[in-house]
Amino acid sequence: MSVKSTRALLEKLDSTETRLYNKDFLLTWEQSDADLHAVLLAAEALEEMWRENVCARVFTSGLAVSNFRDKSTRTRFSFASAVSLLGLSCMDLDESKSQLSHGETVRETANMISFLTEVIGIRDDLFIHEGHKYMADVAAAIEEGYREKVLPQRPCVVNLQCDKDHPTQSLSDLLHLQKTFGSLEALRGKKIAMTWGYSPSYGKPLSVAQGIITLMTRFGMNVVLAHPEGYDVLPDLEQVAAKHAKQSGGSFKKVHSMEEAFREADVVYPKSWAPYQIMEQRTALLRGGQAKKLDDLEKECLANNAKFKNWECNDKLMSLTKGGKAHYMHPLPADITDVNCKAGEVSAAVFERYRLATYHEAQHKPYVIAAMILLTRLAKPAKALMKNLEAAMPHRAG
Amino acid sequence: MSVKSTRALLEKLDSTETRLYNKDFLLTWEQSDADLHAVLLAAEALEEMWRENVCARVFTSGLAVSNFRDKSTRTRFSFASAVSLLGLSCMDLDESKSQLSHGETVRETANMISFLTEVIGIRDDLFIHEGHKYMADVAAAIEEGYREKVLPQRPCVVNLQCDKDHPTQSLSDLLHLQKTFGSLEALRGKKIAMTWGYSPSYGKPLSVAQGIITLMTRFGMNVVLAHPEGYDVLPDLEQVAAKHAKQSGGSFKKVHSMEEAFREADVVYPKSWAPYQIMEQRTALLRGGQAKKLDDLEKECLANNAKFKNWECNDKLMSLTKGGKAHYMHPLPADITDVNCKAGEVSAAVFERYRLATYHEAQHKPYVIAAMILLTRLAKPAKALMKNLEAAMPHRAG
Amino acid sequence: MSVKSTRALLEKLDSTETRLYNKDFLLTWEQSDADLHAVLLAAEALEEMWRENVCARVFTSGLAVSNFRDKSTRTRFSFASAVSLLGLSCMDLDESKSQLSHGETVRETANMISFLTEVIGIRDDLFIHEGHKYMADVAAAIEEGYREKVLPQRPCVVNLQCDKDHPTQSLSDLLHLQKTFGSLEALRGKKIAMTWGYSPSYGKPLSVAQGIITLMTRFGMNVVLAHPEGYDVLPDLEQVAAKHAKQSGGSFKKVHSMEEAFREADVVYPKSWAPYQIMEQRTALLRGGQAKKLDDLEKECLANNAKFKNWECNDKLMSLTKGGKAHYMHPLPADITDVNCKAGEVSAAVFERYRLATYHEAQHKPYVIAAMILLTRLAKPAKALMKNLEAAMPHRAG
Repeated sequence: MSVKSTRALLEKLDSTETRLYNKDFLLTWEQSDADLHAVLLAAEALEEMWRENVCARVFTSGLAVSNFRDKSTRTRFSFASAVSLLGLSCMDLDESKSQLSHGETVRETANMISFLTEVIGIRDDLFIHEGHKYMADVAAAIEEGYREKVLPQRPCVVNLQCDKDHPTQSLSDLLHLQKTFGSLEALRGKKIAMTWGYSPSYGKPLSVAQGIITLMTRFGMNVVLAHPEGYDVLPDLEQVAAKHAKQSGGSFKKVHSMEEAFREADVVYPKSWAPYQIMEQRTALLRGGQAKKLDDLEKECLANNAKFKNWECNDKLMSLTKGGKAHYMHPLPADITDVNCKAGEVSAAVFERYRLATYHEAQHKPYVIAAMILLTRLAKPAKALMKNLEAAMPHRAG
Repeated sequence: MSVKSTRALLEKLDSTETRLYNKDFLLTWEQSDADLHAVLLAAEALEEMWRENVCARVFTSGLAVSNFRDKSTRTRFSFASAVSLLGLSCMDLDESKSQLSHGETVRETANMISFLTEVIGIRDDLFIHEGHKYMADVAAAIEEGYREKVLPQRPCVVNLQCDKDHPTQSLSDLLHLQKTFGSLEALRGKKIAMTWGYSPSYGKPLSVAQGIITLMTRFGMNVVLAHPEGYDVLPDLEQVAAKHAKQSGGSFKKVHSMEEAFREADVVYPKSWAPYQIMEQRTALLRGGQAKKLDDLEKECLANNAKFKNWECNDKLMSLTKGGKAHYMHPLPADITDVNCKAGEVSAAVFERYRLATYHEAQHKPYVIAAMILLTRLAKPAKALMKNLEAAMPHRAG
Repeated sequence: MSVKSTRALLEKLDSTETRLYNKDFLLTWEQSDADLHAVLLAAEALEEMWRENVCARVFTSGLAVSNFRDKSTRTRFSFASAVSLLGLSCMDLDESKSQLSHGETVRETANMISFLTEVIGIRDDLFIHEGHKYMADVAAAIEEGYREKVLPQRPCVVNLQCDKDHPTQSLSDLLHLQKTFGSLEALRGKKIAMTWGYSPSYGKPLSVAQGIITLMTRFGMNVVLAHPEGYDVLPDLEQVAAKHAKQSGGSFKKVHSMEEAFREADVVYPKSWAPYQIMEQRTALLRGGQAKKLDDLEKECLANNAKFKNWECNDKLMSLTKGGKAHYMHPLPADITDVNCKAGEVSAAVFERYRLATYHEAQHKPYVIAAMILLTRLAKPAKALMKNLEAAMPHRAG
């Protein structure tokens, strides 16, 4: 890491033709390969600039709006970090403190919060078939406002996790794999096991699993999706993964055995989720406000989950992986057996061995979010950062 | 819009003698004509600078405190946008997270939050006869703190809506009218109908109606206030409107017919509010914590409102206006029949026709707030912005 | 106050050898004399720079995280002011909006919120024997993350009040005393009465009393701690105070009479707190979620408090002090008889006489917090500020 290597990254970024300017970042499979490469290059450059104490501000004013419709710690702080890095002011749209309950349309609110706004980051992952739709509605409203000159600039909408995808997570994970194996090219032919894991909770989003199988298949990896019978992810996204594998020369396979998935894997990614059919029932009950039936559904699901307590990533399973030393990944927080639950996705011994590695994996996220903002909001993002690099102004004095 | 037109605005601003420096902005009728012109000029200049990508920061550090005692979306975001534009850090005084319940005096709190503060924006519109008083108390406490050298600077208090006035709204509306008709001078003799509108809710503040009738009468407009019998606004503010009309050569009239108000109107502004006498009862009951009586009052009011469902701005009424094409205004969100309620202030057809116009009306607010901060906090506001204009630093790089 | 005097302060600061860089600020008694002097010098310099309108930004980007586990107004705003002064973006860790309830470890959260973070300010004063421990755990986790290169920089943890100490308060108080008496040297031999005061509430933290007795004994003051029998502070901190007194040539004494403490005092500091043994019971009950027993404990304590209503700082008591004119101190908000309670820590007459003095006392806190951040985060803090001083850029234009 040095000013020289950062300059090389920015030169590469400058020669990458993307279609991101004045657009949104909602689903990785809607983006071109060049778009994804540009995000990775910009994220890497921004990370180096921060580590080398070079100021990366490209805005002097303007808002970055966050809209968390579900709890969040790391994505919330990653978003806040990203916008501080670039110079924007973070403003949370707390729907309980607004007049949105008043029946205001999404179309209107989207414009009202955007007059001096450069980015709107949204998490909406509780309701299946709805989260992405909401983000797309916000994006369409903003597009209209910009076209009609209500908005002087076109804020980008960044998906901070929806019902379909979690692109800031999956691209941070990809950056982690790139650094772990040395290059994107080195990922070809590597086996990654995206597996379900037992958790004493239910209703967890599917977007991490869906994000990983659709993204990693694009880079020639051999992706195995493993889960108990009935814990399916959205079928159309399995098809996207299969299509990507075919195009890239990788592979995509679904199995119902954690052992089979782990065997000779280079990377394992055990993580709980709820079956999409359950999420559909749950969404309908939540919409109907049917508390009793929601309780029943939760009990039924927890009982069903409990049949699969053996879906725990432990030393025995790890020993099946390539040389017994696969890389372990998790978006955090993990359900760790005997640490924060009686039985969970991963044993305490395995997690502790990889704990710092998961922190390293997580720390890319602010830069990935900043890269998305940079590429969607600036006409010449690489040139803007290059100017900062030449100026060599520190972000921390002294 | 260009650097040249912005320079002309700033030169005009520089030659406008205001009394705003180190003062507050609470009620438009307390301000001189020059003060109001200065706010409009500064708002226009700031808007042009943002649209032309010229950095308008005049602060490098310091707080902007918001204190919302009622729900808010657009004013909340307008305030946050304004302070980001100028370079301040926004900090919300959330009274539930503070020790204010502890019986701390307003006088003390006002000082405690102001040590490095440049502006305190307050919304307090729930309690009639109290909102403005609270703001005035905060302003007096700050004045004492500044005089006694507790505070190194004199933060300004900006009224983000009280029981009497809503100056950031009415001045945004005035700017919208100025742009719509070409100049302030062009407003002379134009008819504006500030009318009540039906809403299936009650307890809405009166400040928009009061703000419009007191402000627009100052610019030679023919202002008609229309509402059902018993839906009076504060009598002393009707008197202010009448006095302004007399001084400016405009007129002020009150009628109890929406038709009469709309006839040949150039501008219509249909908007629900609660009668001030009801607000007085409500305030007393809220203070007494009398839940049962509050419920009864709400039922009674909603029943009374329901007698006036015909106070809806629809195509038939619009056809009575000047050429059938009056400009429609609303502070948003509107109660739109068949959109967010069964029957409301405006029909879906009329609202949809003017929807984007209301967004344009709304987008001035951040600049109006920023203008108020600029003029109250800077000794030489025009010169400061001119310096930024010469430096031509962009707020968005690349 | 002038650029010249600020330069002198910074030169003195530059020649003070501290061990604060890349460390935390948790307890004053863990810090060397030089560390404390450096905080005072930096705070004074920052205050002068703000008052002289010289920009004190030393960061262009980066987060300042606040984590308030108890209500706060003035410390919350002091922290926000401090970080705005230095150029950081403030981000509150609201545990109710995060996944922390999910069983996430402190170790993990501390890293997840710190990727681009320069400071974490924590208030945790509700649970005796736990607040400081939590801060130390956060600091240890961050230290690990930094050592393992998860974190590119080492955020400092700043204690915004724990069960043991309240260093940002006690150092602001010390700065106030220094300004009041002309110098730190002038404090030698002065008598300060840190006394309990009656309050119609219970469960108030002990940290102010503990912070004052441990800090002021270090500067040669004659410190008298006074409280009713049974209202003891933590015994080991009384020992620290005694040790400090011995080292500095001051004195430390405990009495059970407000009169005795006030007699010939130069400074009086009457402030309510709960006995540490009660806090221990309360902590156990809170942990056990024993609502009924908590109610009983509260009643018992309030009844016990009520026996000591005569522990009120009033004119009669004040007349016993040095020349009847001791300086009165309080961290605010005070319980003032007939103002915000029927009987409290201080009479209305005494409080009103010293009201503005307490505001002056309070206004140092933002600069003390900023000084702690500056000294822990910058390798050459004095040189960085000196550079700003030479550049003479105003924080407010115009």
